[in-house]
Amino acid sequence: MSVLFAAPELDAAVWRARLEALLPSHAVAILGEPFDRAAIRYALSWAHPPGALADLPNLKAIFSLGAGVDHLFADPALPDRPIVRVVDSDLRDRMSEWVVMHALIHLRQLRRYERQQRDRVWADDDAQPKAGDIRVSVLGLGVLGLDAATKLKALGFKVSAWSATPKSTPGIECFNGKGGLDALLAQTDLLVVLLPLTPATQGMLNASLIAKLKQGGRLGGPVLINAGRGGLQVEADILAALDSGVLKGASLDVFEREPLPASSLVWSHPAVYVSPHNAAISTPAAVASAIAHQIAAFERGEPLRHVVDRKRGY
Amino acid sequence: MSVLFAAPELDAAVWRARLEALLPSHAVAILGEPFDRAAIRYALSWAHPPGALADLPNLKAIFSLGAGVDHLFADPALPDRPIVRVVDSDLRDRMSEWVVMHALIHLRQLRRYERQQRDRVWADDDAQPKAGDIRVSVLGLGVLGLDAATKLKALGFKVSAWSATPKSTPGIECFNGKGGLDALLAQTDLLVVLLPLTPATQGMLNASLIAKLKQGGRLGGPVLINAGRGGLQVEADILAALDSGVLKGASLDVFEREPLPASSLVWSHPAVYVSPHNAAISTPAAVASAIAHQIAAFERGEPLRHVVDRKRGY
Repeated sequence: MSVLFAAPELDAAVWRARLEALLPSHAVAILGEPFDRAAIRYALSWAHPPGALADLPNLKAIFSLGAGVDHLFADPALPDRPIVRVVDSDLRDRMSEWVVMHALIHLRQLRRYERQQRDRVWADDDAQPKAGDIRVSVLGLGVLGLDAATKLKALGFKVSAWSATPKSTPGIECFNGKGGLDALLAQTDLLVVLLPLTPATQGMLNASLIAKLKQGGRLGGPVLINAGRGGLQVEADILAALDSGVLKGASLDVFEREPLPASSLVWSHPAVYVSPHNAAISTPAAVASAIAHQIAAFERGEPLRHVVDRKRGY
Repeated sequence: MSVLFAAPELDAAVWRARLEALLPSHAVAILGEPFDRAAIRYALSWAHPPGALADLPNLKAIFSLGAGVDHLFADPALPDRPIVRVVDSDLRDRMSEWVVMHALIHLRQLRRYERQQRDRVWADDDAQPKAGDIRVSVLGLGVLGLDAATKLKALGFKVSAWSATPKSTPGIECFNGKGGLDALLAQTDLLVVLLPLTPATQGMLNASLIAKLKQGGRLGGPVLINAGRGGLQVEADILAALDSGVLKGASLDVFEREPLPASSLVWSHPAVYVSPHNAAISTPAAVASAIAHQIAAFERGEPLRHVVDRKRGY
């Protein structure tokens, strides 16, 4: 019985050692080295080359090594086996840290006060809004969206949320569907995006959506925080909306192309915070441990958890 | 029956209109204009000139127009009447916003990533700690300290707190007294100061205290966040500790002299965040409303709330 490590960008030697320690009953094969295809029961993938998981006759499941699974659907020859997402409490907690930090940074005008510090200016703003004056809307009510929404609420923000399918959660006004999205956007001061990338969400953060956000709120205009996937956003539209004043500011952790090209105008826009897709990292140790636990439970006859719905794409 | 407005730095005309609207049964006298001293039942002060509240034979109580009361004790002729602090939920919520924002900024190395953005550098740090790796200690467990501690805990930080007198609160390890303070400091990665300024706390954030903070934690060194009072801190010691590496960073909202003099080295230290004593503003409307409610309740025979203990000084 073997697991196949299929992640060309990651350090195979380190992962092999880690997986062998956690799964002593399994051999660890590395994509790119010779291995017995019939022995593979589980594949662990991050951006494997298309076709690499075909012809594995005894494959039982495919584990994504990150929270997103869009990299798997990029493979037209992906075997028809259960796909398991990583659900890691560290990743969830880090994502909420990043989201809450950026919500507070925009609320409290951090960049203004940093500029004043550079200029040695002692000046205040009596009309400063508080979190309770601001409506934050979270797009996506999965594990990440729900945790961020809960923590934003604990800080005093008014919080709504939207999901593709109907959901409800105490204390958070929930919207769904196309009409629900427009209603939500019309009341939104601060839009937090934690959606998966699917054909339905590709490019949705565009000029049309941005134009539906509430104008004239206490932040001086709506703010966009995207920590979902870069493919959700149209960067040219975001920059144009910032320049025209339809959008007041943005915090982006993800980009259409990553690494963000040095030539991108996103880097230098004064109303944008850029971070290098590190809002929520999974430590390799936590991911390996979660996968090893799932494999052990599955082999005891328990069902796999966090299985992706192929129709929805997440 | 009159209230005396004794705050030379504030706009008397605006406050008079506000107080007259809230307390129609009281006349509003302004310090500096002629008024009948025998008619005054309540004084509202922010940094009144020493002696200004003497010789008010029918004075019942003194209300501070801000959360701190150290400005009142600076008057050696302060009448022996109950002193009432402002307790304002907006002020409390804003203080926690500022504290949580700065805790997250130091945790998530915001300034590093802002520098990388300026330089168009896409680079990450695999060893990024999470909030749960960091011990935050809150000095002061009054209304502000308790709220900040609770919200820091909601974000995932490990939270301890210290108060002069023994207190306890669920989920937060509480310390008190001199020995308790040293034990707390020895485990502290991030020190949040929300203490009142009293003879016992004056200058306590000095080289000796800083040297007791835990070294070698996941932040790369201890971090100081002071939103209490500038008189608590010795800025020369803080700068020296930052330069020697005993302290990793600081967020300061309050200063020994305010406004912070343009010549101060604090402005330009790369490891310091400066804000202009605006972590938690009370809106004048909220303060006036809280005081008017207290006066109305007191005149119905109810006891005054949030009365200062003169021995403790807060």
